[in-house]
Amino acid sequence: MTVLEKFFCGDQAALARIISIIENRDDGYQDVLSRLYPCSGQAIKIGFTGPPGAGKSSLVNNISKSLAAQEKKVGVIAVDPTSPFTGGALLGDRIRLVDMPTDGSVYMRSMATRGSTGGLAAATGNVAVALDAFGFNYVLIETVGVGQVELDIIDTCDTVVVVLVPESGDAIQALKAGLMEIADIFALNKADRPGAEYISAELNTVLEIKRDKSDWELPIVSTEAINNKNTDRLLEKIQRHIDYIKQTGNFERHRREQIRKKIESILFNQVNILVRAKLKDVANIDEMVARIFAGQSDPYTVSRELLRLSSIS
Amino acid sequence: MTVLEKFFCGDQAALARIISIIENRDDGYQDVLSRLYPCSGQAIKIGFTGPPGAGKSSLVNNISKSLAAQEKKVGVIAVDPTSPFTGGALLGDRIRLVDMPTDGSVYMRSMATRGSTGGLAAATGNVAVALDAFGFNYVLIETVGVGQVELDIIDTCDTVVVVLVPESGDAIQALKAGLMEIADIFALNKADRPGAEYISAELNTVLEIKRDKSDWELPIVSTEAINNKNTDRLLEKIQRHIDYIKQTGNFERHRREQIRKKIESILFNQVNILVRAKLKDVANIDEMVARIFAGQSDPYTVSRELLRLSSIS
Repeated sequence: MTVLEKFFCGDQAALARIISIIENRDDGYQDVLSRLYPCSGQAIKIGFTGPPGAGKSSLVNNISKSLAAQEKKVGVIAVDPTSPFTGGALLGDRIRLVDMPTDGSVYMRSMATRGSTGGLAAATGNVAVALDAFGFNYVLIETVGVGQVELDIIDTCDTVVVVLVPESGDAIQALKAGLMEIADIFALNKADRPGAEYISAELNTVLEIKRDKSDWELPIVSTEAINNKNTDRLLEKIQRHIDYIKQTGNFERHRREQIRKKIESILFNQVNILVRAKLKDVANIDEMVARIFAGQSDPYTVSRELLRLSSIS
Repeated sequence: MTVLEKFFCGDQAALARIISIIENRDDGYQDVLSRLYPCSGQAIKIGFTGPPGAGKSSLVNNISKSLAAQEKKVGVIAVDPTSPFTGGALLGDRIRLVDMPTDGSVYMRSMATRGSTGGLAAATGNVAVALDAFGFNYVLIETVGVGQVELDIIDTCDTVVVVLVPESGDAIQALKAGLMEIADIFALNKADRPGAEYISAELNTVLEIKRDKSDWELPIVSTEAINNKNTDRLLEKIQRHIDYIKQTGNFERHRREQIRKKIESILFNQVNILVRAKLKDVANIDEMVARIFAGQSDPYTVSRELLRLSSIS
């Protein structure tokens, strides 16, 4: 049996192998994804983002266990972008899979970038397709939301939970910086700590504007992940959000939009490879670079020239 | 006089206007850049990156003042990516332009992303071209190094200073995460604080490997930016690095590589616009998305189809 055949028989070792092929972009990984895609689309994708130390991993663990208790299969992707100043230590202090069901109903995979975030969003999306095709009912994606790449990752999810803690004095900044746009639910974790009420009130004020524009309640759920407190309330809000977006058609619209983005990304990548190959024969780019370096031209003029030479227009 | 004519006469109000045109990508900004490029290329570009609170702004201020005292003109770009969890407050606690020369020899510009980092690296590079063409001898670019965008920005500089503090226990992580590749000089700021010797020793250990591969010393300069201590030593190392890369040809090689990247970025952007326009007439992408959504196809197969329809291959 090929690894793909084993995968479709539900072999977890084959799943791990397929994920590695996808993550490392091994030869033929696109053919593998071609085969997986038609079997995907059933899993609900939930994104968790928030500052380091907010307790995202504990929350994700709790949610996974609750879903498993409901006979659901859960795949977890923990993305650790090891960004220069925030990363690295994150995976280390994760206490993973403690008390986790060992019957294969919860599967956890870490993705690290080892110094480069290039293509991380695409790779994460592809791994989610694999988990989805394998038959997991839920795919939970956890990432530290500090950059464009992480926002891209989280944007592919059906529902986005932003995890904050009372210490997140920068909560309002976080909202201003793009998370406001993608957050569907706020989890205010470590809600037993001082400042929880203040930040909750502060959040509510900011959220009023967004709440006015939509029928979705945009809830703030107070949690204590370490004590598994209010996990069910958070899960209930997640389910309610899924119901809401399915009713309004937003679920399907968003998924179609993600497919469209994926097509464009593959297509433009292919086009760029072709253009590069074409120009290799007809243009002396070194010479053009030299002209610009010498102050005799500029990249805009040269690009127009190359566009003409590529005979695409 | 047009704003460009005023710009070339050295009018700082026109400079500010031109930068805004470039930053906002107003109509015709590319024509403006076409005009600026041939006058650029003279300025030395120095990048400063490091964790929030490391004292980058103070260091950049000190360096600017020292250069101004040497009769040099200095343009400063402070990039504030307002990333969800680290940004926002950064600009607020900057005490800028205190004691700065008021004769126009130091010009400072902040760039914030207001929630989106899309195109920030390109915009920063373009603003640097404007400062360069305006006649500044040095362009200092300061950014918080937390993501790919910031690494892209800093990579365009001739010399990169990574600023750390004794508290940066994550220094080694930072090195692992890509900064190692781009750092030319380390400034260990707040060097009077406990832990400075430890982190310096730790850094030295990690740097040994890289030092072995190059003739460049890869120095660590201990600074106390707040007391303007060792600014001149840092500046001396910067000058020495510029001399080094000019002698070895790395300066020119790196600049040519940046020009090549810029050409490709403009070209591929143009190509993508053309391909999109072509496909609009010949392909029903909505229908293709619907097929994938229904599990009847996949983005890789569809992309191949679109590539064929675009008649580029």
